[in-house]
Amino acid sequence: MAKRVDHIGILVSNLDEAIKLYEDCFGVEIEKIETVQEQGVKAAVLALAQGARLELLEPLPGSNMAKVLEKRGEGLHHITLEVDDVDKELGRLSERVELIDKKPRRGLEGMVAFIHPKSLRGVLIELCQKI
Amino acid sequence: MAKRVDHIGILVSNLDEAIKLYEDCFGVEIEKIETVQEQGVKAAVLALAQGARLELLEPLPGSNMAKVLEKRGEGLHHITLEVDDVDKELGRLSERVELIDKKPRRGLEGMVAFIHPKSLRGVLIELCQKI
Repeated sequence: MAKRVDHIGILVSNLDEAIKLYEDCFGVEIEKIETVQEQGVKAAVLALAQGARLELLEPLPGSNMAKVLEKRGEGLHHITLEVDDVDKELGRLSERVELIDKKPRRGLEGMVAFIHPKSLRGVLIELCQKI
Repeated sequence: MAKRVDHIGILVSNLDEAIKLYEDCFGVEIEKIETVQEQGVKAAVLALAQGARLELLEPLPGSNMAKVLEKRGEGLHHITLEVDDVDKELGRLSERVELIDKKPRRGLEGMVAFIHPKSLRGVLIELCQKI
């Protein structure tokens, strides 16, 4: 079962501009900035004082994420729920929903897996397990 | 400045079905179910063990939210950031972004105000102040 909302992913066309905007408006602090080639994004994790976080995602050229941005524009992209054991959760959930990832894979900060939004009322949910 | 992510709003066409789905998949617990006439929605707040929450929103017939659902379909709708003083934050933010609400108004659990998504990279952000 899910323990907490880990972060909310936000798709943007320009990471530096978006970071400045969120810093300026809401006082978030940059926790990390990293390129995740496997996911086709340059990502920034922005922390709020009490722990919940935002993640800004700028697609790498030619990636699937670049197509998503072109098609849908900037905006909310996914919710990440932290769990103790992604593999175990995938086993439990596979009977209930359609999985994008049948096995956990490396994410920005641990093992992750995505669930298909058509199974969850249009919401893309990522499960993450800290390692 | 924002203290924490209070909840993530998810627009759905049928609240009861969506609640069952999220209970079944992620072990969330129903914190409250309430109709907010002013916002044109029936809303359910679902809590996760460690405090972060999801909010499912089913539009009332004929409301603006019903038009949003018709146009965009189900999916992520907004992020809510908790602040100490919504009115003060609106004053500070009004120079930086376009506000939907120039003054705080009653929300599900306190005073709230929305910022226009075109100012925030396509993300609808709600500020909330607990009362």
